[in-house]
Amino acid sequence: MPDTPTPDATLRPPEDPGYEARVRASFDRQPFMSRMGAEMTRVAPGEVSIDLPFDVELTQQHGFLHGGAIASVLDAACGFAASTLMPADAGVLTIEFKINFLAPAAGERFRFTGRVRRAGRTVTFVDGDAIAVADGRARTVATMQATMMTVQGRDDVRH
Amino acid sequence: MPDTPTPDATLRPPEDPGYEARVRASFDRQPFMSRMGAEMTRVAPGEVSIDLPFDVELTQQHGFLHGGAIASVLDAACGFAASTLMPADAGVLTIEFKINFLAPAAGERFRFTGRVRRAGRTVTFVDGDAIAVADGRARTVATMQATMMTVQGRDDVRH
Amino acid sequence: MPDTPTPDATLRPPEDPGYEARVRASFDRQPFMSRMGAEMTRVAPGEVSIDLPFDVELTQQHGFLHGGAIASVLDAACGFAASTLMPADAGVLTIEFKINFLAPAAGERFRFTGRVRRAGRTVTFVDGDAIAVADGRARTVATMQATMMTVQGRDDVRH
Amino acid sequence: MPDTPTPDATLRPPEDPGYEARVRASFDRQPFMSRMGAEMTRVAPGEVSIDLPFDVELTQQHGFLHGGAIASVLDAACGFAASTLMPADAGVLTIEFKINFLAPAAGERFRFTGRVRRAGRTVTFVDGDAIAVADGRARTVATMQATMMTVQGRDDVRH
Repeated sequence: MPDTPTPDATLRPPEDPGYEARVRASFDRQPFMSRMGAEMTRVAPGEVSIDLPFDVELTQQHGFLHGGAIASVLDAACGFAASTLMPADAGVLTIEFKINFLAPAAGERFRFTGRVRRAGRTVTFVDGDAIAVADGRARTVATMQATMMTVQGRDDVRH
Repeated sequence: MPDTPTPDATLRPPEDPGYEARVRASFDRQPFMSRMGAEMTRVAPGEVSIDLPFDVELTQQHGFLHGGAIASVLDAACGFAASTLMPADAGVLTIEFKINFLAPAAGERFRFTGRVRRAGRTVTFVDGDAIAVADGRARTVATMQATMMTVQGRDDVRH
Repeated sequence: MPDTPTPDATLRPPEDPGYEARVRASFDRQPFMSRMGAEMTRVAPGEVSIDLPFDVELTQQHGFLHGGAIASVLDAACGFAASTLMPADAGVLTIEFKINFLAPAAGERFRFTGRVRRAGRTVTFVDGDAIAVADGRARTVATMQATMMTVQGRDDVRH
Repeated sequence: MPDTPTPDATLRPPEDPGYEARVRASFDRQPFMSRMGAEMTRVAPGEVSIDLPFDVELTQQHGFLHGGAIASVLDAACGFAASTLMPADAGVLTIEFKINFLAPAAGERFRFTGRVRRAGRTVTFVDGDAIAVADGRARTVATMQATMMTVQGRDDVRH
């Protein structure tokens, strides 16, 4: 198949024009993120980046950023990326995610980005990657595949 | 196949008789775990449990325990479960994990348990589950499948 | 937490009393399964087993059962396990699955079992395991975690 | 971090100059692939594509390509992509993979591509995607994250 065409992009534009303010406000209501020192740096349709400075409080026994801390911020980036494309009154829940750790997370700061691959009515697939920056050089330290659910009409799950 | 036999258990006993003290000391060197308020409650060959009281600082925007916090402690439980069966001088690294969120993590306290399914020379498979306790009733809120690597001879990765 | 209670089972009984006949008929409409020689041996609420005899046509380059063949039958077992608890007019689609290969799949025959962990209105979580039988001894060769979706009202996806 | 640099590529060149012939020969020894009608169309350092024409024998009950068939060929593409970077005498085993199904696999033909993300001495991470072509248009129907192991010195696992 030398003539295999390039796959079509499948993302539709956000149906909620106020998606950025909504997503940023929701992020600000996550105590776990603020406690870790995470900052939402970019919100675009289907794509969100969160930055995190190195903090010894977030490390494991070898002095690297804890895999759980990486997973936590990457999960948040993926969830909010999905949320940008959801209705204004919807909440987002993580159904599942898978994370591969490619390299020890050594660095001065980290960037976590989630990018929607396909947004369905109920289920949204998101890819994520975590980048460590050290001495001006960047390295991918983890990748994630996440499945997010659009939740509507539940009092306990709002945006 | 009505006569299919029950699968053989495949775990060998720990080769390091001091595995419990080693694993507990390593857990105590994880700042991220102590900062979260996690406590290692059980260490047995191939099985480790970590408990966590509810803390609003660990929640997401809906008031449930953050999925990242769940993943973090479950990853630790799985990693240390693998570590119990490793040589005394080995370090453990998470290659990858997958987590499914079965129910919102509401509860007064949580128990995270990792159980080794198969321990190889280099690669160990571990199952994990997270249980929420509320009003005296327990509920499984997440399950994990993790792959851990035995690391030896690297100065930056020690137990 | 020495007094942590055992988690509640969360499965509700099948709402479709004719679930077994429905699931078996659906299995019989999967050409890929019959071509592989797979046979559905057990259908219970939330649990389905499929057996497969060894066939050199299903092997990889080392002579073991191909990982893809294992994943295929395990995916089917998990999907049909989910289907047993779905409405009579619903179809089932696999959202995602993760599979860990614990041991080379050598054996005379194999049993693949899917067991529902949690059945929601839209999303169902299923655990699966693959067992190889050789010389009267059984060994777990793979485990799966799968997420299934209940599909209703779509002409192209029926049971 | 507006100045976050682009992550470094981390792939080293193949150490086995005969990687292409070796990988193609190994593919030809997988009865399961030839039985499915799969054809290896591209072998490059760290990247392999396999094509598959639609075949009703490979479908599930809705008439789409069976998820297991997709997973099987994608697993093969990922495994051989990893193999291109391995030593000439090494075998490759799949440790685990995760697959997300993005859209029903309808099409006249399919292309499965594996791309190495990081190649370590023992463990290699590979991303995969499956593309369906229908009426001259392509659509991504599934993505995979796989972990492959380099196996040396075992008589039962050779390239």
